[in-house]
Amino acid sequence: MSTKATAVLLIHCPDQKGIVAAVTDFLQHNNGNVISLEQHVDPNLAHFFMRVEWELAGFTIEREKIEDYFSTLVARRFGMSHQLHFTDRNPRMAIFVSKASHCFYDILQRYSSGEWQVEIPIIISNHESLGPIAERFGIDYRVFPITKQTKAEQEEQELALLRELDVDFVVLARYMQILSDDFCAQLPNQIINIHHSFLPAFKGARPYHSAYERGVKVIGATSHYVTSDLDEGPIIAQDVTHVSHRDEPKELVRKGKDIEKRVLSQAIRAQLEHKILPFGNKTIVFH
Amino acid sequence: MSTKATAVLLIHCPDQKGIVAAVTDFLQHNNGNVISLEQHVDPNLAHFFMRVEWELAGFTIEREKIEDYFSTLVARRFGMSHQLHFTDRNPRMAIFVSKASHCFYDILQRYSSGEWQVEIPIIISNHESLGPIAERFGIDYRVFPITKQTKAEQEEQELALLRELDVDFVVLARYMQILSDDFCAQLPNQIINIHHSFLPAFKGARPYHSAYERGVKVIGATSHYVTSDLDEGPIIAQDVTHVSHRDEPKELVRKGKDIEKRVLSQAIRAQLEHKILPFGNKTIVFH
Amino acid sequence: MSTKATAVLLIHCPDQKGIVAAVTDFLQHNNGNVISLEQHVDPNLAHFFMRVEWELAGFTIEREKIEDYFSTLVARRFGMSHQLHFTDRNPRMAIFVSKASHCFYDILQRYSSGEWQVEIPIIISNHESLGPIAERFGIDYRVFPITKQTKAEQEEQELALLRELDVDFVVLARYMQILSDDFCAQLPNQIINIHHSFLPAFKGARPYHSAYERGVKVIGATSHYVTSDLDEGPIIAQDVTHVSHRDEPKELVRKGKDIEKRVLSQAIRAQLEHKILPFGNKTIVFH
Amino acid sequence: MSTKATAVLLIHCPDQKGIVAAVTDFLQHNNGNVISLEQHVDPNLAHFFMRVEWELAGFTIEREKIEDYFSTLVARRFGMSHQLHFTDRNPRMAIFVSKASHCFYDILQRYSSGEWQVEIPIIISNHESLGPIAERFGIDYRVFPITKQTKAEQEEQELALLRELDVDFVVLARYMQILSDDFCAQLPNQIINIHHSFLPAFKGARPYHSAYERGVKVIGATSHYVTSDLDEGPIIAQDVTHVSHRDEPKELVRKGKDIEKRVLSQAIRAQLEHKILPFGNKTIVFH
Repeated sequence: MSTKATAVLLIHCPDQKGIVAAVTDFLQHNNGNVISLEQHVDPNLAHFFMRVEWELAGFTIEREKIEDYFSTLVARRFGMSHQLHFTDRNPRMAIFVSKASHCFYDILQRYSSGEWQVEIPIIISNHESLGPIAERFGIDYRVFPITKQTKAEQEEQELALLRELDVDFVVLARYMQILSDDFCAQLPNQIINIHHSFLPAFKGARPYHSAYERGVKVIGATSHYVTSDLDEGPIIAQDVTHVSHRDEPKELVRKGKDIEKRVLSQAIRAQLEHKILPFGNKTIVFH
Repeated sequence: MSTKATAVLLIHCPDQKGIVAAVTDFLQHNNGNVISLEQHVDPNLAHFFMRVEWELAGFTIEREKIEDYFSTLVARRFGMSHQLHFTDRNPRMAIFVSKASHCFYDILQRYSSGEWQVEIPIIISNHESLGPIAERFGIDYRVFPITKQTKAEQEEQELALLRELDVDFVVLARYMQILSDDFCAQLPNQIINIHHSFLPAFKGARPYHSAYERGVKVIGATSHYVTSDLDEGPIIAQDVTHVSHRDEPKELVRKGKDIEKRVLSQAIRAQLEHKILPFGNKTIVFH
Repeated sequence: MSTKATAVLLIHCPDQKGIVAAVTDFLQHNNGNVISLEQHVDPNLAHFFMRVEWELAGFTIEREKIEDYFSTLVARRFGMSHQLHFTDRNPRMAIFVSKASHCFYDILQRYSSGEWQVEIPIIISNHESLGPIAERFGIDYRVFPITKQTKAEQEEQELALLRELDVDFVVLARYMQILSDDFCAQLPNQIINIHHSFLPAFKGARPYHSAYERGVKVIGATSHYVTSDLDEGPIIAQDVTHVSHRDEPKELVRKGKDIEKRVLSQAIRAQLEHKILPFGNKTIVFH
Repeated sequence: MSTKATAVLLIHCPDQKGIVAAVTDFLQHNNGNVISLEQHVDPNLAHFFMRVEWELAGFTIEREKIEDYFSTLVARRFGMSHQLHFTDRNPRMAIFVSKASHCFYDILQRYSSGEWQVEIPIIISNHESLGPIAERFGIDYRVFPITKQTKAEQEEQELALLRELDVDFVVLARYMQILSDDFCAQLPNQIINIHHSFLPAFKGARPYHSAYERGVKVIGATSHYVTSDLDEGPIIAQDVTHVSHRDEPKELVRKGKDIEKRVLSQAIRAQLEHKILPFGNKTIVFH
């Protein structure tokens, strides 16, 4: 991650000639120094994807006008969807947890050691238990107990809180509640979950026990955007580890935790660096 | 693999005290030098599994009597199932292929370079195309074209041929026919298949295309014993590789082939070294 | 790890017939229920290694007499070296840290979540900086600043403290001081270090920068017992990750941290479960 | 790899503003449809690297003039080094082998199954033994026995043969001769070797035995360009596998062969697709 202030554009549009030239000309004519550029064409969908990052220092368009100028001068012409980010503004991430602490600590260590450029304005949980840990790290911790009866109302309050705190995206760090369709719909491609299996195998509850029953020789974890379709959202990252007949379910759980931490932190990092472009039910993850 | 002649016992029985002592006493009292011993207890099933290998040189029971003596003196007492193998007799393996050559060449290279201690008396195919390769390696190649009408009859002839050639087990090296239930039932835990996905994800046909559609970030391969339940037999080995949005289906197929070769050869090696103990729908794979 | 109280014997001796039978007979005759048994013969050294674990419940020799009985009845006969451990006594581990927090948090999370059966009576550092973290976890933190002049004296005090607290082994969780030969000699095979390269490549300081200079495509980490020969002690665990031309040194450092955490925790776990048998400059690591 | 005819430019030059814009403008103004574009800036060297591929169909500059036009209109301005390739011309690869067949078969299977777009006009060896295999695949096999006395002369003849056959690059598929400095100097970054260790560990002869002596827990393989500095050339690809105390040297050799095949074929593929840009003692390997 560059320490200089840079701008990042994430772009996609139907594939056609001249897109890269048009974008790089726009930057070049306004004295923008390109730091990195990566593009991808999906030949089946005939769709074009791109991430370009350039230095703000010396760029002749003021940052608040870039959006407007780019839309008018480039994006319209190609029918582009685009997002603009500035890397000197830290994304604001909310964490949802229940009782498991492994992903939680892993995230907090990366946060507190400065590995990530991120703000964490709030931690939300349906249980009290991890509150003291949040306190040690000096982060607000709010408990929203969920029952069938209170779910709708509690989620509404959670959403209000997220909006109030200007949260950019939510991380479910082994949050053991299923979010309602309404909640998911309010935050499209803004909720990152970690599921403890290599999807699409072993959807739903107790995947490690299912893996044990099936006698698989690898187990895995999957981070994905949450959609109303449980465990079916766009996959961001996956990894696995080898297991054997010696591994009882509790061993699978233990080994799995290490993969969960790794895969979730990988997805969060990509999100923080504006490197993920969701499209349909898939993701483009730039380097 | 030891170059000295050794005997291998694969044992399983309900767990109880004194099994290891009884087996090792039997060997010790008859002057058997244990080369390796590995045991496993499944605490959920309360079942015991073991593989022990000892040198035949100096062992005071003649090899044709070992089976009988062991049954009478040890196995009965513990209600054991057991298999006895001698490592100076090479297992006899039949290969079934269709048109894909990657696993086929990989197997033949290992065979011809002496990496494996194995006999390959026959290669069976539903197509002519790989015949010339078999010929180069000096192995008999028989074509049994399969149609709905001829399937039952052809399989019967294949089985007769396998029996006649004293084949110990069959490897489906990307054989693109589904074997009938009857065929499978005749060769329980004697047919090893390679499926081109990390099961239980993407069962059935065209798994790489399904993986592409789902947008997964890892693909894999699974070797397993064939049962009448398609892609549901006991898993022997699995492995995966990372993929990205850049990988179109044909790239997934290409990357997958390398995993298929690796995973299938790993399973074959374990089989040749008498290291697999299938139990229920799982396998114990000793080192 | 079994929740029942068990005993673990780690054994090695020159290879000879009848060792497994003798050990399992000893257990069987005294009503010991073997939970797991793993042996290994090094054919080049003609040396035998074994780990056996059995339930204490029902075992007819009182635990304080096992050592004596086993020595007299079995070990002497075969010229065995052996260690005896009881799994209902948690090993006592001291942690040495400097300023880096990644391995430190990883260890503390595993400790506080109950993943490991371990006592951590003390954390020792040459810096104040991680003291507040130790405090949050309720563990004593002692600072021993090291200069050339004070090193000998400080190490003496550290050793005295370790003895006083009955510490079984020490973990150097990225402790940035080189221990003196004297210190190492006092704790043979009782100090576990994490080195941030796949040894023997890139010994010494700044391995990630050396890896960058060489242009390698994988980086790794190594946990090993500390000897007076820097970065040359017996290796316990190693792992690697893929990198590319895009990874500057700071990226290598970041990616490397994740491997360091994984590899160090793997070594600690094996140590806690009495699964490591060092021999010469190598280790046998049982499952 | 696209099935349409495309052109590939590999470019590097001191980093400066406007390079991507200049290149893409050049293509755009001449009606070139960009298929893929990847760039990299090394911030320490302030050096820029790029690979761009575009369709030849519709491109308004005839292919034999592209080199000249690009040099004049773009490359000079930025002080670029560049290479131009056309993907409808298959690269011509020579294979050097000795007696080991594993990499050799792996390459030939990929070649004969059409996995790679490559011509193999010649196989060169210092031994007769693999000749019959080459013959089966219908490829010329020439034996150049090497002794201290004949080495210089034989290498000269080999070089003459390579020139005569218009060979683009050489693959040493476990060729057990050290090439002279002269030979290496004639084919800079055109000779790909596979070394059977994860360099820089275990350079030179018998790396698996050295790995065994050191007691490492991973072994690896490295493909690299050959320079006059043995095992020190620019690394193209590396991979590893886990091993344990159970693996004697012959097991390390066996496991290592599988990595060697994988890593060498990965390097060859990158070479065939014009994705490697060597710079100094490192490589940029584009996707």
